[in-house]
Amino acid sequence: MGAVAHKVKLYEQVAERLEEAIAAGTLQAGDKLPSVRQLSLRERVSISTVLQAYVHLESLGLIETRPQSGHYVRRRERPQLAEPQVSRPASSATAVSVSALVASVYKSMGDARIVPFGAASPSPELLPTRRLYRELSALTRDTRDRSILYDVLPGCLELRQQLARRSLDWGCALSPEDFITTCGTSEAIHLCLLAVARPGDTIAIESPAYYGTLQAIEALGLRALEIPCCPRNGMQMEALEAALTRRRIAAVLMVPSFSNPVGSCMPDVRRQRLVNLLAAHDVPLIEDDIYGDLHFGPERPRTCKAFDTRGNVMLCGSFSKTLAPGFRVGYVAPGRFRERVELLKFSNSVATATLPQYAIARFLQSGGYDRHLRALRRRLAAQVERMASAVAEFFPAGTRVTRPTGGVLLWVEMPQQVDSLVLHAKALEAGISIAPGPIFSARMDTYRHCFRLSCGHPWTPRIEAAMSTLGALARGLV
Amino acid sequence: MGAVAHKVKLYEQVAERLEEAIAAGTLQAGDKLPSVRQLSLRERVSISTVLQAYVHLESLGLIETRPQSGHYVRRRERPQLAEPQVSRPASSATAVSVSALVASVYKSMGDARIVPFGAASPSPELLPTRRLYRELSALTRDTRDRSILYDVLPGCLELRQQLARRSLDWGCALSPEDFITTCGTSEAIHLCLLAVARPGDTIAIESPAYYGTLQAIEALGLRALEIPCCPRNGMQMEALEAALTRRRIAAVLMVPSFSNPVGSCMPDVRRQRLVNLLAAHDVPLIEDDIYGDLHFGPERPRTCKAFDTRGNVMLCGSFSKTLAPGFRVGYVAPGRFRERVELLKFSNSVATATLPQYAIARFLQSGGYDRHLRALRRRLAAQVERMASAVAEFFPAGTRVTRPTGGVLLWVEMPQQVDSLVLHAKALEAGISIAPGPIFSARMDTYRHCFRLSCGHPWTPRIEAAMSTLGALARGLV
Repeated sequence: MGAVAHKVKLYEQVAERLEEAIAAGTLQAGDKLPSVRQLSLRERVSISTVLQAYVHLESLGLIETRPQSGHYVRRRERPQLAEPQVSRPASSATAVSVSALVASVYKSMGDARIVPFGAASPSPELLPTRRLYRELSALTRDTRDRSILYDVLPGCLELRQQLARRSLDWGCALSPEDFITTCGTSEAIHLCLLAVARPGDTIAIESPAYYGTLQAIEALGLRALEIPCCPRNGMQMEALEAALTRRRIAAVLMVPSFSNPVGSCMPDVRRQRLVNLLAAHDVPLIEDDIYGDLHFGPERPRTCKAFDTRGNVMLCGSFSKTLAPGFRVGYVAPGRFRERVELLKFSNSVATATLPQYAIARFLQSGGYDRHLRALRRRLAAQVERMASAVAEFFPAGTRVTRPTGGVLLWVEMPQQVDSLVLHAKALEAGISIAPGPIFSARMDTYRHCFRLSCGHPWTPRIEAAMSTLGALARGLV
Repeated sequence: MGAVAHKVKLYEQVAERLEEAIAAGTLQAGDKLPSVRQLSLRERVSISTVLQAYVHLESLGLIETRPQSGHYVRRRERPQLAEPQVSRPASSATAVSVSALVASVYKSMGDARIVPFGAASPSPELLPTRRLYRELSALTRDTRDRSILYDVLPGCLELRQQLARRSLDWGCALSPEDFITTCGTSEAIHLCLLAVARPGDTIAIESPAYYGTLQAIEALGLRALEIPCCPRNGMQMEALEAALTRRRIAAVLMVPSFSNPVGSCMPDVRRQRLVNLLAAHDVPLIEDDIYGDLHFGPERPRTCKAFDTRGNVMLCGSFSKTLAPGFRVGYVAPGRFRERVELLKFSNSVATATLPQYAIARFLQSGGYDRHLRALRRRLAAQVERMASAVAEFFPAGTRVTRPTGGVLLWVEMPQQVDSLVLHAKALEAGISIAPGPIFSARMDTYRHCFRLSCGHPWTPRIEAAMSTLGALARGLV
């Protein structure tokens, strides 16, 4: 297996409690935090643990240190909107049929003339295309190169070696043998679902959930059970636990790091609880880690897989959001389901395309990927903040917006009477695409007043004008 | 839809009857055929129809014209072995579990030190890798190129346009809109199976059948019903018809042109009968046309899709056997199941890798593919003939071998007491891989004395030595 159990550090637990107090408004912007000594006594931890917790919160941009004064909850420079509240989906499982609606939304995404607030990827300007193509060309000029041939399962060894090395950053210590390469994260998830569920089975998912997840569930004749989620910290464990005791659930499928569409990131304590809970119920977790590398803070979130000692977590990821969506290169570390997933991979596509895997492996080996990621994360963090400000500036009063700590997405909750399907239609007429709320739930009325906003594109006058237009359209619908 | 119903021409029916008489031994090598006038009277067809039939049989290499004398069944230059007989699989459906055995066989295939008689692809020397990589590099140098991005369903338009143009050669007149591009034929088939079958359903297949087909059936929890097949003309229609009346069959999945492993090619009359039969029973046909472009005669076999007026045939193919296995570019024309297959494709892999599709589309546009195919077919025809002679020369008395009219494979039926699994193990020790018979049937004892022999590699002293070794090993097992 190779995964090592990862304990949540003490300072993280302390920081987590303060973070929750800030999120709940118990501690407000400008409030002074307890002194290091006070907190050390209250939490029964050492002074150095408290100091670590404060450094951590500062790195997240949540608090600031004032010399000779102490620690304070940070004031935001711009007016900040309230966050959406915890979701309250229906508590019964349901068959899914979002596809027709998704198809109509998806059609506009490929059109370069449309302002692509609907997509969930970084703009091509932010991708290291030239450098990646240079690696690819080097391969095609090598006469010993055999990349015209089938790759052999479990996939390109050089790439799996790089993944194993990177897995240390995910809090795991996976070996190359733990991985199977796939055609993007979507194939990885499709294989995992096929491995653990049969038609009619129930899959527990986040609410709202990525429409691709809903479509995968629909395509395989499964049922979706949407679990309430906090837009900051992800799936609510109490709700999941209640669901697990009420009915048979074949698997839980979620995006713990910078979820799609809301951008939530599960704290480590919650991840540990999730992994333990599912192990106790013998329910596998399909972990979609596609946005994990796009953290705005200094540290990459650990994966749930880091807490998995029983091979119960099937970790899926790819390079589609960071390097090359069109290469279709992803991976799965399927834990104890490895054999079945490898069989399914062979029958699904024999192997992953050879050349793209080798090109990415070379790019990773060269250190180019890490350099690229550092720049990409800075750009995305700035773009997300800029777009959130634009929502505050242009959208009707009462609009709420998420405060993601990574990824490329904002989730916008407008006043109840604004219909995002109408907004979507009007925006498209104005040359702007958005992803309307209803495609993110099996019950398509739940998020009717919400939409997903991509921040993948650098801020330009064109983007600003589009945000202004979009806000005006939304105001017109109040 | 765009598929046009294709009538079997009269001359083809006449030729077919003569071909069957030759296959059955009613007409033997050197026998004089009826005069044109005699046959015209006997068959009640025009003189010109008989002449067309004779020209057709001559092009297939089955008969020869002797000036001022008439038409004769052609004598082969080399001693020719008998063909295997029609297969007699068990008549009940069964669950499949060939995977463990396949995995052990498959492992050796990627090893360049092993003589690859086990693979089912042309040697990389026969592929136009340099020219294809040139197209790819041209794309990566184009600054307007967007191939780093997701391709959008139903896939690269330029490629679908080329496929539509080529479909005329398949006896169809498909439009670009009829196609969805896929990660090779295997994804196409996986999607088709998911679209029309649920776990526990029965799929009728050829016997013997491609192990990948058996694995796809195993992976999806389906059951396989093996139908008797003639090594020359493919699936027996009487047997299929009987099966269809006996039980519910969710789909028929077959390789009508140069099947894997036996290399059979269904005559048009049989294809028409198959399509009509399945339409009458409302059972879809999944047509795997992966070897269709590798015909040795002058004409490409028509697809079954050519006879389909109701959208009941799901045509699958790829460029994996002719251009670039590692590119993973294939397609499906799913007929009336189009919507469902497109949904499944999205949830399975979002889209096919972008760059490989565009590179292949450019290669097709340039005419390079057709030029390459002409050379490739000549090479393969010669290699198949040379390998068949080597089987005759080196293998034990009583060995039978197929006489394929296209593709890259021979199916060798050794005397009953020779165990191909033992031969496989001994051959591997000697650095030679073969594909033993048992992996080609859900009932793994059926083809114990048979194996599949790849003719993808040019004849060299190394190949000759390997055939000599293999034959000696087989003789040692009698």
